[in-house]
Amino acid sequence: MAHLKIQSVLETCLYVDDLEAAAHFYGQVLGLEEFSREAGKFVFYRLGEGMLLIFNPEASRGGAHDLPDHGASGVEHVAFAVEEEALDAWRTHLEGLGVAIELDHLWPHGRRSLYFRDPAGHSLELASKGLWS
Amino acid sequence: MAHLKIQSVLETCLYVDDLEAAAHFYGQVLGLEEFSREAGKFVFYRLGEGMLLIFNPEASRGGAHDLPDHGASGVEHVAFAVEEEALDAWRTHLEGLGVAIELDHLWPHGRRSLYFRDPAGHSLELASKGLWS
Repeated sequence: MAHLKIQSVLETCLYVDDLEAAAHFYGQVLGLEEFSREAGKFVFYRLGEGMLLIFNPEASRGGAHDLPDHGASGVEHVAFAVEEEALDAWRTHLEGLGVAIELDHLWPHGRRSLYFRDPAGHSLELASKGLWS
Repeated sequence: MAHLKIQSVLETCLYVDDLEAAAHFYGQVLGLEEFSREAGKFVFYRLGEGMLLIFNPEASRGGAHDLPDHGASGVEHVAFAVEEEALDAWRTHLEGLGVAIELDHLWPHGRRSLYFRDPAGHSLELASKGLWS
């Protein structure tokens, strides 16, 4: 299966009950540019070569638009890549908007991650692209 | 916040109760190269510039390694980017291994997606990078 190679993750999904709160947080606090939104159903963001898709699981479980059904509950984790030199500014920015930094973690190899929660309680992380290299 | 720009998704997570079944599926069926594994806890894959992290939620909910806790249940969705010309070969490959194609979808703009399930029931999609362009 040499020619059958998965290149990258194209869509990463989060499930939230309150899409309005999520859209405010991901748009205004994290600064993502909205790609599309359907009230009560989803809000989508383009991120690099991929997409962050945030769904109301009540809607996606129904198999919206005749697509296969999906919908999770509980606490998910997503990490986002940022410039490592911007982590201090991110911390100041988030705290200034009332977002608590749950953990400011220094990894053994010297890289650093900021952990915080979105309004749904999902665990978000900001780290440099080099975290896994 | 011009300099505070999120560049991409660095970590996409799935939660499965049976890590062995997941490792077989993502490794042998989807052909991903394992990056690291801790029995009963997680299996990680590097994918392009990001990582696919598969957790046993029982373990990750405990806040393993003193990291913030997370752990979801239900059906998640992840899409992976592949070469569009390889979709026929992917379909043959998956069906040959007994993976049912739940939907072979042609989008209005002409792009195509294959949908199927992993052993945990998560909804996976193979599509070309151009799906969202």
